[in-house]
Amino acid sequence: MPKFATVAKRLVLGRPFRSDRLSHTLLPKRIALPIFASDALSSVAYAPEEIFLTLSVAGLSAYALAPWIGVAVAVVMLVVVASYRQNVHAYPSGGGDYEVATTNLGGRFGLTVASALLVDYVLTVAVSTSSGVANIGSAIPFVADHKVLWSVLIVATLTALNLRGVRESGKAFAIPTYGFIIGILAMVLWGLFEAVRGTPMRAESAGFQLHEEASLAGFAFVFLILRSFSSGAAALTGVEAISNGVPAFRKPKSKNAATTLLLMGVLAVTMLIGIIALAIITGVKFAEDPATQLSGAPAGYQQKTIVTQIAHAVFQGFPPGFYYISFATGIILLLAANTAFNGFPVLGSILAQDRYLPRQLHTRGDRLAFSNGILFLAAFALVLIIAFDAEVTRLIQLYIVGVFVSFTVSQAGMIRHWNRLLARETDPAVRRKMRRSQTVNAVGLTCTGTVLVIVLITKFLLGAWIAIAAMVAIYLLMTAIRRHYDRVARELAETDGHEPTVLPSRNHAIVLVSKLHMPTLRALAYAKAVRPDVLEAVTVNVDDFDTRELTAEWDKHGFKVPLKVLESPYREITKPVVDYVKRVRGDNSRNVVTVFIPEYVVGRWWEQLLHNQSALRLKGRLLFQPGVMVTSVPWQLASSVKAVDRAMRARPAAGDVRRGLYESAERKENR
Amino acid sequence: MPKFATVAKRLVLGRPFRSDRLSHTLLPKRIALPIFASDALSSVAYAPEEIFLTLSVAGLSAYALAPWIGVAVAVVMLVVVASYRQNVHAYPSGGGDYEVATTNLGGRFGLTVASALLVDYVLTVAVSTSSGVANIGSAIPFVADHKVLWSVLIVATLTALNLRGVRESGKAFAIPTYGFIIGILAMVLWGLFEAVRGTPMRAESAGFQLHEEASLAGFAFVFLILRSFSSGAAALTGVEAISNGVPAFRKPKSKNAATTLLLMGVLAVTMLIGIIALAIITGVKFAEDPATQLSGAPAGYQQKTIVTQIAHAVFQGFPPGFYYISFATGIILLLAANTAFNGFPVLGSILAQDRYLPRQLHTRGDRLAFSNGILFLAAFALVLIIAFDAEVTRLIQLYIVGVFVSFTVSQAGMIRHWNRLLARETDPAVRRKMRRSQTVNAVGLTCTGTVLVIVLITKFLLGAWIAIAAMVAIYLLMTAIRRHYDRVARELAETDGHEPTVLPSRNHAIVLVSKLHMPTLRALAYAKAVRPDVLEAVTVNVDDFDTRELTAEWDKHGFKVPLKVLESPYREITKPVVDYVKRVRGDNSRNVVTVFIPEYVVGRWWEQLLHNQSALRLKGRLLFQPGVMVTSVPWQLASSVKAVDRAMRARPAAGDVRRGLYESAERKENR
Repeated sequence: MPKFATVAKRLVLGRPFRSDRLSHTLLPKRIALPIFASDALSSVAYAPEEIFLTLSVAGLSAYALAPWIGVAVAVVMLVVVASYRQNVHAYPSGGGDYEVATTNLGGRFGLTVASALLVDYVLTVAVSTSSGVANIGSAIPFVADHKVLWSVLIVATLTALNLRGVRESGKAFAIPTYGFIIGILAMVLWGLFEAVRGTPMRAESAGFQLHEEASLAGFAFVFLILRSFSSGAAALTGVEAISNGVPAFRKPKSKNAATTLLLMGVLAVTMLIGIIALAIITGVKFAEDPATQLSGAPAGYQQKTIVTQIAHAVFQGFPPGFYYISFATGIILLLAANTAFNGFPVLGSILAQDRYLPRQLHTRGDRLAFSNGILFLAAFALVLIIAFDAEVTRLIQLYIVGVFVSFTVSQAGMIRHWNRLLARETDPAVRRKMRRSQTVNAVGLTCTGTVLVIVLITKFLLGAWIAIAAMVAIYLLMTAIRRHYDRVARELAETDGHEPTVLPSRNHAIVLVSKLHMPTLRALAYAKAVRPDVLEAVTVNVDDFDTRELTAEWDKHGFKVPLKVLESPYREITKPVVDYVKRVRGDNSRNVVTVFIPEYVVGRWWEQLLHNQSALRLKGRLLFQPGVMVTSVPWQLASSVKAVDRAMRARPAAGDVRRGLYESAERKENR
Repeated sequence: MPKFATVAKRLVLGRPFRSDRLSHTLLPKRIALPIFASDALSSVAYAPEEIFLTLSVAGLSAYALAPWIGVAVAVVMLVVVASYRQNVHAYPSGGGDYEVATTNLGGRFGLTVASALLVDYVLTVAVSTSSGVANIGSAIPFVADHKVLWSVLIVATLTALNLRGVRESGKAFAIPTYGFIIGILAMVLWGLFEAVRGTPMRAESAGFQLHEEASLAGFAFVFLILRSFSSGAAALTGVEAISNGVPAFRKPKSKNAATTLLLMGVLAVTMLIGIIALAIITGVKFAEDPATQLSGAPAGYQQKTIVTQIAHAVFQGFPPGFYYISFATGIILLLAANTAFNGFPVLGSILAQDRYLPRQLHTRGDRLAFSNGILFLAAFALVLIIAFDAEVTRLIQLYIVGVFVSFTVSQAGMIRHWNRLLARETDPAVRRKMRRSQTVNAVGLTCTGTVLVIVLITKFLLGAWIAIAAMVAIYLLMTAIRRHYDRVARELAETDGHEPTVLPSRNHAIVLVSKLHMPTLRALAYAKAVRPDVLEAVTVNVDDFDTRELTAEWDKHGFKVPLKVLESPYREITKPVVDYVKRVRGDNSRNVVTVFIPEYVVGRWWEQLLHNQSALRLKGRLLFQPGVMVTSVPWQLASSVKAVDRAMRARPAAGDVRRGLYESAERKENR
């Protein structure tokens, strides 16, 4: 089929993937980088901004500290990257921080990390979307004027796309991510080159005056600097993504993943420092509340993001440069928001395997469970976006705590990991290597632990408490689910007296009859096939006239099976049947009653609403009766045939590529 | 048990009724009157008001016509009552207008009536609640200030009560209804007595000036009078209720029902005329828009309902009289709103029996269907209340058209009914009696038909079109449902080639195994009991480690049944099993595959969320496969035992009393 026709068909049909078309295709580094690093790289769009914004409270003089704070964030970033390179080598299975913490520190720490990551996914959606809208809004004022609305629309679109099933393709990630990297690096290089040449570059806010909110000194000033640093640490969000994706890399997986991680770290640090440098050079003023903090701004001034302000100054006289940076930044941020939709089911699946989340999240086939997860993620992200007016600054306060909880716990786990290996290892060369790795992780632990403490102190009242409360709630929910599963497993394992392997002594079969039509006849024939000890047909008298008609027809047909009529003065079906089944089984626990329920199967959901509701309810109730088997004998109506096709078609699910499920373009073309 | 303890227990437990406690207890006239007539009697609270309000447009002089309009409404009322006395004798089965129309004019007319009645139920809730709030608000300004909010709260409360299951008790209806009747009659008698004595009685609005909106003459004036008349015809809403309730009366049912109907008609007419008379005597001014139409009113004047204004004037110097009338009127209106919650399921059940609505509405036991009906009713009523600001006047415009559609169609049906009987009857005495009845119905048809035309002309643009559009939509929906059921019935009846009575030639049994626990062992044992031709266990390899463990354990146990492992590269369960079942059955249509699914049963809904989801989905999918029986083998966990008790307890359902289901107090005490 020509390519265009395929694309057109996809757009129309929307469900082109059959599950047998899926195949494992491993990712080369050049594709893995954009897929796994878009989240981390995109955070350089907001991290520098948050540094300046926090410092703005102490007035312009505090801006001088921005480069130093930037350097501190960059150092932490490189330390964390170095640490995770150890993780990637030690745990190539893709379990990430959750696996490291569980294996080395026990389930509780694993669960702590998992709770932190789940909260983080929600915040990734909220922060990235809000920041994306702010960057696009810097180019299109109409978007900036309605940023909450646009953020909501974008989250709704991402949700719909992921519910419908969008394949993460390497290309879809590669183009915008490389577009962003190249754009920012070009801007930084050109800006520095121009600065060296002495070209004057002034941001649009360069001429504004920044009012000192309060003359801070001593402890308060230190506190402000720490707060600015912890806001800047938002640049580290998403760094751990590669450690969850090792299995999707080409071989040697760990080595390639570690290389990609390093590449990502270097790129992120370069862009971060570059942006901060240009912000200073172009004289950007960025305030939390421009209306009160800035003077000299025109009336109705809409504060643009720092990245776009720099782009405007650097590419002066070349507007496409400004628009390119605005949109490239906006798009990579929306891509980062989308990664949360993909990462969530992967983590959910691992947690479900460990029975901390409902089991159905474990298997890929469960679109329903996936959908619930996606809706859950979107709903909470929307609540945050609306509650915090899509303000990146206010959302950031909640964001960083979760990230650093999982960094810190993971690094602590790694130290234990090396201790365990060292205890067994005798080869001095290997031991030396292990010692070195352990040292890297120890530095990582110190660093991330310190940042975590700083974040907790400086952010707690500003919103971090919300994230912590959510983490605690999720932690408790997951332990409750696990406890329930454990209790059920224990109960299923104990035999306490009754021996289920003993064969039933008597099988009494009951065919439920409401009318004498095809499904009933088939159910009767099938019931005979199981050769029960007793076989009878049973009907419930809901309407005297109908029942008389049925019994007359029954007699006329001359079945050898007797038809028993159960009276139901209140025209309900369930209770008379359940009571009768109970009576028939009697007290002998070795007796079995098999209830055959003729059902006809229709194809469309609204048809299903009109049929078999009482059969469904009866089946549900009979399951509570000991010693009863419930057999559905289906009769397929014409409309059901189409439905089979519909149901068997598998659509791509969010997170497939991250799990190593991938539709290879070549294989598809060959069909 | 002492009575108080029972009451306390009920309040706490809320589910005191077991379905075996229900019994048929027929209603004496003194109880049937309040149960079936509260809706009709309560409409005299708003009908006179609507007459004055409509006339107010033409200024004070038009008020002189109010008594004549009142008399016209009263005449129509008595004609309709006389007509329905014929219905009650001819159709004692309680099918009401729907039955009369269907039997005599055919399904389309029956369906038209049914659509009209369904719309009416929604409007009964909206109008009665709004009017009830207006009357209570006349005594408590705080309620009047937030009438939409209070109306919404009341509908929500009624919904909750009916969802939970509130038994309609005779007493609960009798006390407020008789309280209202006695209150209004006492007010009318005392007011007329005082008027004759010459005591000056002036309503609070007596001193206001009413501005003529427009000086109407000729056609416009006639139109206004007709509009006022059709608004006053709102007094007739609810008259048909008794004809739906004949089976609940004591014997002789029809005679008692006819007597009750007459009693209701006389009471309603007396109250209606009395209220109009007193309104004239006390000089009430009542305007659609008091702010522009009335002058001389104090600032912030809240217009009180006519009934309460009269009560204030008649019981001057005796405030309890005013409060009594306000609350008695408010309460009977809320009771009238509640009758719609009871009438709806009864009509729904009849329509479901004729397959115009989903079948599950037919049987009493289906609480889920009932709940959906109640929620549907409440949701639409809330939409109307909010859309029309809980303004009785604006809602009334939608109300009357449905009532008169069903009156008119029903009377037309009755004329046909007598024609049919007359064709067969030869006894002159009986024929004379029939002729007389037919004449009554003919007068009824003329009357109601005329009113219907007037209503359509004068109300169409004011809102009646909404009611008509809703009726058409419901009509179309019901015919679509019926068409679907008919199509399925046809399909189920045709044998086209395959003969379902032929016994299966081979039964291949498959036991699905996920783990080796009690439910699996029981399923194996039960599967052996049906003595299949082939028996095998099947597991889906979702996780290599788990599968290896399972097969090892299986071998160790030494079952004689082989365990087959199905591969599932994408960790889904449904597709591999369905494919395998298809393969096993092969092409022989006489082969049967029985799939045994071990299930464990938990008690609580949230536990159910955590279990058996994949089994449920698999069952759903297997039903689409021809020649497959799906057998659930349940294993009851400890928590399921309590759930059985919970599920078997039957709660009273809305509309029980109207259907003749009733818990007799005596029987309960005897237990």
